[in-house]
Amino acid sequence: MVKLYSSEPYRISYMNEIPGSVGTSASFILRLGQTLFSSASLLFMSLGVEFYSYTAFCYLVTIMGLVIPWSFTLALVDGYSVLVKCPIRQPGILLIIVVGDWVLSTLTLAAAASTASVVDLLLNSQGSFCPIKLCCRYRISAVMAFVSWFLSLASSLFNLYLLPSL
Amino acid sequence: MVKLYSSEPYRISYMNEIPGSVGTSASFILRLGQTLFSSASLLFMSLGVEFYSYTAFCYLVTIMGLVIPWSFTLALVDGYSVLVKCPIRQPGILLIIVVGDWVLSTLTLAAAASTASVVDLLLNSQGSFCPIKLCCRYRISAVMAFVSWFLSLASSLFNLYLLPSL
Repeated sequence: MVKLYSSEPYRISYMNEIPGSVGTSASFILRLGQTLFSSASLLFMSLGVEFYSYTAFCYLVTIMGLVIPWSFTLALVDGYSVLVKCPIRQPGILLIIVVGDWVLSTLTLAAAASTASVVDLLLNSQGSFCPIKLCCRYRISAVMAFVSWFLSLASSLFNLYLLPSL
Repeated sequence: MVKLYSSEPYRISYMNEIPGSVGTSASFILRLGQTLFSSASLLFMSLGVEFYSYTAFCYLVTIMGLVIPWSFTLALVDGYSVLVKCPIRQPGILLIIVVGDWVLSTLTLAAAASTASVVDLLLNSQGSFCPIKLCCRYRISAVMAFVSWFLSLASSLFNLYLLPSL
């Protein structure tokens, strides 16, 4: 109801000022970063052949398999929006993007934390379960997943900040 | 700027309708639940004496030690607000509560996921690191931490929903 009073030109100029929201070049860079770090995390984890013996590692691979297509699709949408200079401004679509980003970032965080704790346990246990080279790769994979979580969260927050002004 | 046009009586009646935001009885119940489940998680984890040999378990204990006083304090504030029928409506304080809730819920999720994955690894490894009774207690602790995360997230979302209307 309150929204009815706001003037249209003010809204449009205000909306375009938020960097990182859907359809800006900052958002495009964020999405590319998500795709890149998720792919790196997936590759570092799955090119070693032993990952499926640990639940946490399987979970990480599953989640990264969800994050990569999501981020890549939104990167394409952002790139297209920047080229044609016509960003998405439908509240419904933006809400889906915010919720999707948020759910995926939560899942990514859980996967990254699980992987990190399992790697820590494997490195510190006396039995020496994994060769040191393999464990370092698992650790790099966890760090990449944390970076991907952070970027995904940033996208979600920028879009959430834009949402009430639509 | 938009807020100036909204009429004061409308705002007050609208604000009081959101259950779960600060100063309502639903919020009081949520806070009590957070305190309860966090305490249960802490007790199930720390009354066994071996938790400090795993990083993930130490992390869970640390985070629960942060969540319990936070939730308990806000439960007291909510209880007081319900009794005197005068809820907090300063945007600054509400923002601090939303951000604090959100940070703590993120940390709780990471701790719960780490604990769950380590417990899973301990239960499934061939070496049989922990007695089955102890591992079950660790698992219950992880479940309690997940419930605490969910309640904390609910509080954060309800308050975030209230924030733009202030």
